Amino acid sequence: MKARVHVTLKSGVLDPQGKAIAQALQALGFDGVKDARQGKVIELDLEDGDTSAAQARVDEMCRQLLVNSVIETYRVELEG
Amino acid sequence: MKARVHVTLKSGVLDPQGKAIAQALQALGFDGVKDARQGKVIELDLEDGDTSAAQARVDEMCRQLLVNSVIETYRVELEG
Repeated sequence: MKARVHVTLKSGVLDPQGKAIAQALQALGFDGVKDARQGKVIELDLEDGDTSAAQARVDEMCRQLLVNSVIETYRVELEG
Repeated sequence: MKARVHVTLKSGVLDPQGKAIAQALQALGFDGVKDARQGKVIELDLEDGDTSAAQARVDEMCRQLLVNSVIETYRVELEG
């Protein structure tokens, strides 16, 4: 079973990486880029099992390790 | 218009961040995590316009800046 955790910064939180990307694109001549924000996707390869149990375990993984809940938010996609 | 660029490591490319995540989850007592891989998502806020032109521009942004084509692959989602 695959779990994909999409982690993004909460809106309103400054995103220096995103700012750097937007400025670099501008410097390369790509105008019309109003803003850029960078997030991460963590793909977990889990042993097969019950989907709702897997969802609860991945939520706990996010709580304990994968997500900084002060500045980040996340959503989980389960596959297979 | 929003463009979301999903950047992942090509299969076969060593992913030290993913390995670290998998080991940390194991150490926290989450067994059954066979593998973990980390990618990034870059969300671009573009001025509205023609979708196919936007797709071509984002591809060029990926080629010039956002993606290291030696070790990474990407896909683009356009919205709105």
